Amino acid sequence: MKVNGKHYRTIWVDENNTGIIHIIDQRFLPHEFKVVKLQTSGQMCIAIKEMHVRGAGLLGAAAGYGMYLGALEANESTFDHDIHTIAAQINSTRPTAVNINWAVKRQLSAIKIGKTKKEKIDIALRTAIDIADEDTRYCRQIGLHGLKLIEKIANAKPNSIVNILTHCNAGWLAFVDHGTALSPIYAAREQGIDLHVWVDETRPRNQGSNLTAWELGAQNIKHTIITDNAGGHLMQHGLVDLVLVGSDRTTLTGDVANKTGTYLKALAAKDNNIPFYAALPSSSIDWELHDGYKQIPIEERDAEEVKYVQGYMNGTFQRILISPENSPARNPSFDVTPARLVTGLITERGICEASSKGLLELFPEKNPQHG
Amino acid sequence: MKVNGKHYRTIWVDENNTGIIHIIDQRFLPHEFKVVKLQTSGQMCIAIKEMHVRGAGLLGAAAGYGMYLGALEANESTFDHDIHTIAAQINSTRPTAVNINWAVKRQLSAIKIGKTKKEKIDIALRTAIDIADEDTRYCRQIGLHGLKLIEKIANAKPNSIVNILTHCNAGWLAFVDHGTALSPIYAAREQGIDLHVWVDETRPRNQGSNLTAWELGAQNIKHTIITDNAGGHLMQHGLVDLVLVGSDRTTLTGDVANKTGTYLKALAAKDNNIPFYAALPSSSIDWELHDGYKQIPIEERDAEEVKYVQGYMNGTFQRILISPENSPARNPSFDVTPARLVTGLITERGICEASSKGLLELFPEKNPQHG
Repeated sequence: MKVNGKHYRTIWVDENNTGIIHIIDQRFLPHEFKVVKLQTSGQMCIAIKEMHVRGAGLLGAAAGYGMYLGALEANESTFDHDIHTIAAQINSTRPTAVNINWAVKRQLSAIKIGKTKKEKIDIALRTAIDIADEDTRYCRQIGLHGLKLIEKIANAKPNSIVNILTHCNAGWLAFVDHGTALSPIYAAREQGIDLHVWVDETRPRNQGSNLTAWELGAQNIKHTIITDNAGGHLMQHGLVDLVLVGSDRTTLTGDVANKTGTYLKALAAKDNNIPFYAALPSSSIDWELHDGYKQIPIEERDAEEVKYVQGYMNGTFQRILISPENSPARNPSFDVTPARLVTGLITERGICEASSKGLLELFPEKNPQHG
Repeated sequence: MKVNGKHYRTIWVDENNTGIIHIIDQRFLPHEFKVVKLQTSGQMCIAIKEMHVRGAGLLGAAAGYGMYLGALEANESTFDHDIHTIAAQINSTRPTAVNINWAVKRQLSAIKIGKTKKEKIDIALRTAIDIADEDTRYCRQIGLHGLKLIEKIANAKPNSIVNILTHCNAGWLAFVDHGTALSPIYAAREQGIDLHVWVDETRPRNQGSNLTAWELGAQNIKHTIITDNAGGHLMQHGLVDLVLVGSDRTTLTGDVANKTGTYLKALAAKDNNIPFYAALPSSSIDWELHDGYKQIPIEERDAEEVKYVQGYMNGTFQRILISPENSPARNPSFDVTPARLVTGLITERGICEASSKGLLELFPEKNPQHG
């Protein structure tokens, strides 16, 4: 997407392919737009773990590029051993995000084919770029499929604004470009549909107020930041036409693991007959899983994220304490929204019911009975 | 309740009754415990308006004591005129808080009976103390009634801890003593029941992490602060046995208006078969209202509360920006939880179904058909 008139992705390899990866360091948004260079797989692991980069698709791309940096670092004589060690390090950075494992696995099977270190590096670079390009293409397709939902709502209430609520950030900053939940919104904006987005601030890390609000502002899309508590009230009062969220991991049966609090919004949407859609590339579907509650591991992050809030004051970032110093806190980062609360899934191949039937119709090759 | 071993109320008249009212200035909690003296009705108006004191029951008591200070200030010759002017000033501090008007009205009818200024002052003092004592007594009774619910859960799971989730602050800081939602918890603690409280931080003003966590810590009650987003996940995983909240206004039909986000927790409790109770003195029941959505006005507070967070840093209070400077925000402060999601109401007279039938059985004198 464009930032101050210039097109950016969230991650890219240096034009000269000299083993340098550029990322937007998202920790400084919305106050500072910083592009930084990473040159080792270790730096990439830190960037993932400490959330310089975050979001399902971007984590996959970061893992892909991290494996490329790893291939550069591996010794020719012990290449297999070295690359598997680096793969394990990358895999251990963030537990809930399925895209990391998926990208690492894809890299490992691709790299295997190379005969020399040079070949393996070339393959790793090609694969990393493919992962990023594919993510971009799929996100755009998700946008075009999701656009139809927004068009339908706009047509049903002519001369009124379409109100969409979103939680966390599943915009282009969470992917390589376009995003998932926000991609249909960008597509609708291109079509000239009059829309407005309610942005859940998304405690504890405020990805909504920090990132989603910034993204929408940068594209001149009307939006309003609300606390995570307020969405239910807005839905009760007819101020939300559609809820659009992303998904960090989706089961074959359509359960959606997304940023903590998503489940509460899905319950409120159901209670008020408001359509609730999760937008996701198929790379975030875990085809092995049948029960989101029992099978999806939920990342528990540092309690300090709850007790301290980071923000901007006098031109610098500060951290303030918002609780008694000695009170404990807990920080489960995701929750699972059961398929029964999900109106549908928006994927790169189209929209389907949140069920194995729906998903396997779109992705028949994933059917175990598939020839 | 006790603070560092000494018993406190949130507001009290000086032992020598010399026209001095003491309050705990809650703006400094949890970081500083400050007791300050108020000597004029004007100082009390500022204390209410700028939230040095807050919470339904405490606001009623503060208005009562404010009227006593007003009686001291009024001229003997123009007493009636003066006291009505002061009453209007107190009434205008927080126009949505129903307890303020109720206490001012009660004072005006009581004071009327006095013949001399001295008599009127004596009556005003007596009435202010009565309002505070009654609040304390009712809160304690709510605690003893609610205790039975906790005992029942404790008996059903021997040798396990009872996990209670609460939203916002309906503790003793919101009343004169004991509180409503927290009163059963204090009573259970006295009984030696092993319990633990999940404290919703309660954005945007963080009354949970600032006040409820401080209250529980001061009474050595196990507790954990969570974001407002996390409760649903905890409920899905069997980590919540009971949800206890307060109510700022309750309809005759059992709809509960409470701090924004309460509705989302009620939905999650219902979805996971967890009992959800609102604890409230009958003074917060609006016997005229039948439909919470349509009839209870929802206070919209300043958007700055969403965009900025206040906290503690290097020994002082600071305010940091957590969103793009130019993004708009909205701040509806309450929401309505419909009676169908409320397992029961805990009042000073006992526990009842959240319905007009349930409430009128406990308060038959409120029945329009009542002889």
